[in-house]
Amino acid sequence: MKVLLGISNRHAHLTEETYKKLFDSQPLEAVKYLRQPGQFASNRFITIKNGDKEISNVRIVGPFRKYDQVEISRTDSYYLKLNPPVRDSGDIEGSSPISLINGSVEVHLNEGCIIANRHIHITPDEVKKYNLENIKKVKIRIEGEKAGILENVNLKIASNSKFELHLDNDDGNAFNVKTGDELEIIEMEEE
Amino acid sequence: MKVLLGISNRHAHLTEETYKKLFDSQPLEAVKYLRQPGQFASNRFITIKNGDKEISNVRIVGPFRKYDQVEISRTDSYYLKLNPPVRDSGDIEGSSPISLINGSVEVHLNEGCIIANRHIHITPDEVKKYNLENIKKVKIRIEGEKAGILENVNLKIASNSKFELHLDNDDGNAFNVKTGDELEIIEMEEE
Repeated sequence: MKVLLGISNRHAHLTEETYKKLFDSQPLEAVKYLRQPGQFASNRFITIKNGDKEISNVRIVGPFRKYDQVEISRTDSYYLKLNPPVRDSGDIEGSSPISLINGSVEVHLNEGCIIANRHIHITPDEVKKYNLENIKKVKIRIEGEKAGILENVNLKIASNSKFELHLDNDDGNAFNVKTGDELEIIEMEEE
Repeated sequence: MKVLLGISNRHAHLTEETYKKLFDSQPLEAVKYLRQPGQFASNRFITIKNGDKEISNVRIVGPFRKYDQVEISRTDSYYLKLNPPVRDSGDIEGSSPISLINGSVEVHLNEGCIIANRHIHITPDEVKKYNLENIKKVKIRIEGEKAGILENVNLKIASNSKFELHLDNDDGNAFNVKTGDELEIIEMEEE
């Protein structure tokens, strides 16, 4: 079974409240809609900061969320001197603190910085179609010079979703795969 | 069977001739000896450059070699807008061009930039001891939240070596492993 790959570069999801602190009345606009329904790469970028280390040009992915969340790679985390947990999106309790900057405005988050886990977006209908009932995690096999197997790939089941594997830059670069590649699901781990 | 891991950050190996163009009569000195006999992290750093993109603080690893070689990660290669091949150390024919800079001196290499392949340093005696005769490549299994299998790990057999697995930053960060970790060799591919 093949699944389309989307590589997630570092990005932020913000509440409307946090967004307005940073951008006041400037609108959050979609530059490009993503494969997941309603999700878009916006026209807004922030700088993320920890201590004296910062990374600029971090894109805000819309629409607004009910929580503030910054997703970075482990490579980024070493640079920023943070040790964020590997988490599902939205599971931010006790995750790393980080500051968000736009121009002269800085908003400090006490938690919200995570490394996103490997996951597949899939609908309940597709779960049935592919016989994935009772399956919690799958493995992905990658061919080529930098071949291997990625484990602990979570199934993220939601009606309003499109079948797609999300990996971060570290996974993508280690295995030399890119957005748009089709990768093979090879094994299921039961719940 | 377990093997000790060493993560290789981006670095350069230079000929004495190229080194002298960059550093004139300043000596190349060892700051820290590495696990592989005679190899050392030196006191010298250069900037590597392609077009208008550059990365500073790239360490020279000594001693001098018979060729100039710059080993980077795929993450680095995207930043530098290069597409280096995945190669054994020393196999640089037709690899990517790159420029080396120290202060006002710039040396352009027509080839020499590679992404190092995954490899294990091992002696002929250890090859016999571990029953690895006729084995060319092995696989490494990594546990944990970012678990998986790294394939195409070459055996690099030399008398003057110490048993050690070398991975680059991308592989290390994708699987959350560090220098000093002990990883498991799980499978052999015959030559």
